[in-house]
Amino acid sequence: MSTREIRIYQDLMGQNEVWARKTRDVIAQKRLFMINLIGAPGSGKTTLVENMVSHLAGTLRFAVLEGDVATTRDAERLDALNVRVSQLLSGGACHLEAKLVHAALIDFALDELDLIIVENVGNMVCPAEFDIGEHAKIAVLSVTEGEDKPLKYPLLFREAKAVVITKLDLLPHLTFDLQACRDNIRKVNAGIPVFEVAAKRNEGIDAWIKWLATQRRAVAESATVT
Amino acid sequence: MSTREIRIYQDLMGQNEVWARKTRDVIAQKRLFMINLIGAPGSGKTTLVENMVSHLAGTLRFAVLEGDVATTRDAERLDALNVRVSQLLSGGACHLEAKLVHAALIDFALDELDLIIVENVGNMVCPAEFDIGEHAKIAVLSVTEGEDKPLKYPLLFREAKAVVITKLDLLPHLTFDLQACRDNIRKVNAGIPVFEVAAKRNEGIDAWIKWLATQRRAVAESATVT
Repeated sequence: MSTREIRIYQDLMGQNEVWARKTRDVIAQKRLFMINLIGAPGSGKTTLVENMVSHLAGTLRFAVLEGDVATTRDAERLDALNVRVSQLLSGGACHLEAKLVHAALIDFALDELDLIIVENVGNMVCPAEFDIGEHAKIAVLSVTEGEDKPLKYPLLFREAKAVVITKLDLLPHLTFDLQACRDNIRKVNAGIPVFEVAAKRNEGIDAWIKWLATQRRAVAESATVT
Repeated sequence: MSTREIRIYQDLMGQNEVWARKTRDVIAQKRLFMINLIGAPGSGKTTLVENMVSHLAGTLRFAVLEGDVATTRDAERLDALNVRVSQLLSGGACHLEAKLVHAALIDFALDELDLIIVENVGNMVCPAEFDIGEHAKIAVLSVTEGEDKPLKYPLLFREAKAVVITKLDLLPHLTFDLQACRDNIRKVNAGIPVFEVAAKRNEGIDAWIKWLATQRRAVAESATVT
């Protein structure tokens, strides 16, 4: 039997898992809570983060990783609000991979943070399939998209730890059935928390921030115990 | 409501280009014009097709291939309008592949048709990368998604032969800048035709249908010459 060392190369998914685990280790050590916002293009992910800024002040110190296929527009929007933000460009890819997220994450001053917000590429399908080491995928769905989307894109809603329904201020102008949407979400993922916000009117954000603070506290406390 | 049975096709593996070419051959021979509607989840693709039904009557005979990750809801919506429609289920995949489209296409009575409408899986990224043998990819963008999307998802707008901007009836309730959106589309693809519709108010559909009729005529005439 040979004693030569055999080099082993993992496939792309396997390689992704290695970097996701590195990120999980870092955020556990630093007691950070990390979320991965996933939703269609234009579902209101960046506007939600913009609106969270003032609500997070004094509650959670945070940084944002903005994922996009192209442009730095979203990072610029948050930079204008003095948010710690880096732009992740996917190079044409339809989702963020763990290695890129990790590289950007460790360049933040992590000891000064409680929460990492990743905004994935606008896409309800592919980002749900990729582990980036986060604690929680968050499904972001706007009321303009229709109440059937949780059934049509079930993986995202099954993988998510919470759902944020956005743009509730537009409800009077739509035929969107909010209760049917809640029911469809629960058909795919019974018991998942659902937050309903109108970011442009600053409504509904508090409950969502409170949930994040609770999650972060749980992470910090479990890190203290072990 | 119709009681006809809706055909369901599940994903099959194959070499995409080979099947795209087979489809191109079939639609050339049958003098069909074939479009591939691509846009985000909830961008209004199915509503656009629903609204086209009455306008196409007497102008173009058509059939629809409805692409989705899961459910047969969109095919059911069109079946209720007595549209010739089959449902393509991508089996979790984020786009339609050419083999699945071909298998469904050739089961229609093609001699009775002028136009094939494919509605791709709701996703602005991946479907733009796949040739399904169509004449024209059509980008569908709703005003609720923001005027920056052509810059953030440039491949789709570069590959497309036309853009349909939807939900214009919601403009008074949004901060969407329509002229900036047109400018952004032209930055990526100068000279591309842009149609602006409010399908729920039945506005703007005629120009779009007229463009389709012109394209179909060109296909039929070029087939006659050769």
